[in-house]
Amino acid sequence: MLIGTIEAGGTKFVLGIGNENGEILEKISIPTESPEITMPIVIKYFKDKDIKALGVGCFGPIDPNINSKTYGYITTTPKLKWANYNIIGELKKVFNIPIGFDTDVNGAALGELKWGAAKNLNSAVYITIGTGIGAGAIIEGKLVHGLLHPELGHIYVKRHKDDTYLGRCPYHDDCLEGLAAGPALEGRWNTSGANLPQNHIAWEFESYYIAQAIVNIILTISPEKIVLGGGVMKQSFILPMIHVHVKKLLNGYINKKELLEEIDNYIVLPKLGDNAGLSGAIALGLDSLK
Amino acid sequence: MLIGTIEAGGTKFVLGIGNENGEILEKISIPTESPEITMPIVIKYFKDKDIKALGVGCFGPIDPNINSKTYGYITTTPKLKWANYNIIGELKKVFNIPIGFDTDVNGAALGELKWGAAKNLNSAVYITIGTGIGAGAIIEGKLVHGLLHPELGHIYVKRHKDDTYLGRCPYHDDCLEGLAAGPALEGRWNTSGANLPQNHIAWEFESYYIAQAIVNIILTISPEKIVLGGGVMKQSFILPMIHVHVKKLLNGYINKKELLEEIDNYIVLPKLGDNAGLSGAIALGLDSLK
Repeated sequence: MLIGTIEAGGTKFVLGIGNENGEILEKISIPTESPEITMPIVIKYFKDKDIKALGVGCFGPIDPNINSKTYGYITTTPKLKWANYNIIGELKKVFNIPIGFDTDVNGAALGELKWGAAKNLNSAVYITIGTGIGAGAIIEGKLVHGLLHPELGHIYVKRHKDDTYLGRCPYHDDCLEGLAAGPALEGRWNTSGANLPQNHIAWEFESYYIAQAIVNIILTISPEKIVLGGGVMKQSFILPMIHVHVKKLLNGYINKKELLEEIDNYIVLPKLGDNAGLSGAIALGLDSLK
Repeated sequence: MLIGTIEAGGTKFVLGIGNENGEILEKISIPTESPEITMPIVIKYFKDKDIKALGVGCFGPIDPNINSKTYGYITTTPKLKWANYNIIGELKKVFNIPIGFDTDVNGAALGELKWGAAKNLNSAVYITIGTGIGAGAIIEGKLVHGLLHPELGHIYVKRHKDDTYLGRCPYHDDCLEGLAAGPALEGRWNTSGANLPQNHIAWEFESYYIAQAIVNIILTISPEKIVLGGGVMKQSFILPMIHVHVKKLLNGYINKKELLEEIDNYIVLPKLGDNAGLSGAIALGLDSLK
């Protein structure tokens, strides 16, 4: 069975055809222009491809609530050409098949649960740490949607004792994203994270803040696996630093082997790699067939 | 239909008989002694009562994972006589009916969802702020259990700029519970919260920290309702202060009417009042019949 998959990002759209095992059979990438330019290319690509469903993992914020009047819309994005744009409505005009729609990070979470690092589990949280910080949470096998989709990046954290950076979130200054997303790394050190050596204090701060987000997630929803993706995690040497901070922050409060001797296997990197976004969107498409 | 209900607390056990509407038909209260003294009284109370199910909302930590070898146990409690005690196993020896088992706060969350402040909703979080701070989360109508049951009290928060108190959590010093639970109020001001007047700076700190917990919950699991219970919330004048801080902390980041003009109806006090624990345990008993 063929499933169409769209990884709709702020700078590029990746379009692909995959199957029910999450495998990508073909893909193309196009720049994200205005909807008037980009969407006709999207529609042309999938036309005549004999897909049984389509999955869309989208940059946010979006409205994924199927009972809402604005379901299927990209909502208050700063990319103004796409603000309040009914992307799913546009696709439904042409394609008479089930279409799954969610945030890119929720797609990635679902992909990792179906085929990747959280395979065969019932719950997992996927955290992406890049230009922003976001998370997708799956509980009892289902993506969590409530009042809004989770915006984990903006939780407040306890400040590292040696960190005097004011933070750069336009809403909250020193929330998690304001202290630990890619732009905060750049703003604090005047160079991108990729240029900072492994022994730089930046990574001590970074792993401390990411560890707090993880601790908060463990204490709030206790998933069976936590997967860390996004550009900042390409510096994969911070993973063991994060493990150390999580243990230190919990300080034995939770006496579970997953958080003690097996933490390496509990807080992990994604397995789907470069195709995570596309595979995740396939997972969203498959879910829409249920 | 009659349902037995047990609110198993650290200082007293409340035993009752209720019905499927969460109504309490009779109840008694006994002190929490050792299992050898307390449990025979419990068993005697319910014997010959013609109950169809039993619900137990229990002080923790407990093991509520039905697939676990230690399901039904009170686990690492500092109340040593009850540590590693198989309370559900003991009841099952006598009562051949379905028994629901969860933390007291999860029971309260389920009770508020079924009959109280979160009636007719699919998701809600109940936070109790008292001797400790804990939370029960319901998503898609079901209590959240993962690796462990949520222990929200121990999340880390951003410190209030004027607060120099070191915190009194034995594990984490200045986590939420270490800064904002009843004992922290007492430790900081040398008197119990109930004695502190409404204009005392204590309530500014308190509402700021509770608001952070709420913001983190909103950003993590986005429930449809947040209910605040426990002894500290008896000072109900802090509820509007909490509303103000939640709005200020989110700073318009989430543009939903629930968080703006309708926040009074989104973050609320419990409706089940003094019977919350018993009604919650009935809800757990009813759930065990499914």
